[in-house]
Amino acid sequence: MSSSRTIVNDHYSFGPLDIPRSQVFAETPLSYGIVNLKPVVPGHVLVVTRRIIKRFESLTEDELVDVWTLAKKVGSALEKHHGATSLTYAIQDGPSAGQTIPHVHIHVLPRRDGDFENNDEVYDAVDASERAIGGGGERLNLDAERVIRTPEEMAAEAATIRKLLFNNGVNPNAR
Amino acid sequence: MSSSRTIVNDHYSFGPLDIPRSQVFAETPLSYGIVNLKPVVPGHVLVVTRRIIKRFESLTEDELVDVWTLAKKVGSALEKHHGATSLTYAIQDGPSAGQTIPHVHIHVLPRRDGDFENNDEVYDAVDASERAIGGGGERLNLDAERVIRTPEEMAAEAATIRKLLFNNGVNPNAR
Repeated sequence: MSSSRTIVNDHYSFGPLDIPRSQVFAETPLSYGIVNLKPVVPGHVLVVTRRIIKRFESLTEDELVDVWTLAKKVGSALEKHHGATSLTYAIQDGPSAGQTIPHVHIHVLPRRDGDFENNDEVYDAVDASERAIGGGGERLNLDAERVIRTPEEMAAEAATIRKLLFNNGVNPNAR
Repeated sequence: MSSSRTIVNDHYSFGPLDIPRSQVFAETPLSYGIVNLKPVVPGHVLVVTRRIIKRFESLTEDELVDVWTLAKKVGSALEKHHGATSLTYAIQDGPSAGQTIPHVHIHVLPRRDGDFENNDEVYDAVDASERAIGGGGERLNLDAERVIRTPEEMAAEAATIRKLLFNNGVNPNAR
């Protein structure tokens, strides 16, 4: 399960978007973790497959293991780091499920009691966040509560998470 | 990846609840798929780990592969069967994330355009459904729109899905 293999790409994509390396906080042979343009809770990040594939059913078994193993490690580390008590994991697998970027990605959200008045609202926020990335905007009803972040803020968060994973004994560049 | 190994239990649990075998539509060495007391869309089912564990981080690598491989197969089969175009996958991992049954489970929901007025609402409904199972009820704001099903209805759906998986070349009793 573990190897010290390190992948260094000079290019990271999230669907049609280029993702700066500074925003990638972990990478494995088949996946990477990226910070979010509009996190809806502290530590809301995405874990994506390295290969640009639209639908979850197209993952190979190796990709499935890799992306979920990474998401699980990231979730555990972020939950502790943010003093949270639970996690939400969600995949919007296809446009009718709210997917706006045609590239498999797992939303990982550290959760704590009362972070949303009703638990339901976290998903409203996830959807709004996803629509913000995808360019749609008409239904951004929670937009006023959040701010689109600068590349510098996002790079800083990625650096923090990378360090955090290392400190928790997780090599962000290996599986 | 495939084997013809068949597990036959005489007992299935979902947290503290006993699940009749008739409501189990697929099983693998480490997981099984069960129909839902209050599905929020046609084909809304749960995929659970055979071992009763509360948090996703406690899954072994074998369990993680097993439960997600099964969820992926079930999702693909149900999407086609229900004429859907997308899927929502969600894990409420811990009470603060809306988990009411302390047993890792993946919600799998076939989705189609317009099944909810806003995509967000599907999650409200998932949460309400989960609270119904867990016994909480104060916040069941969508309750009026759905009906708790009889054991017979649930067994019939499980039988349909089991057949469906077989017809799609997926052995519901093997991995």
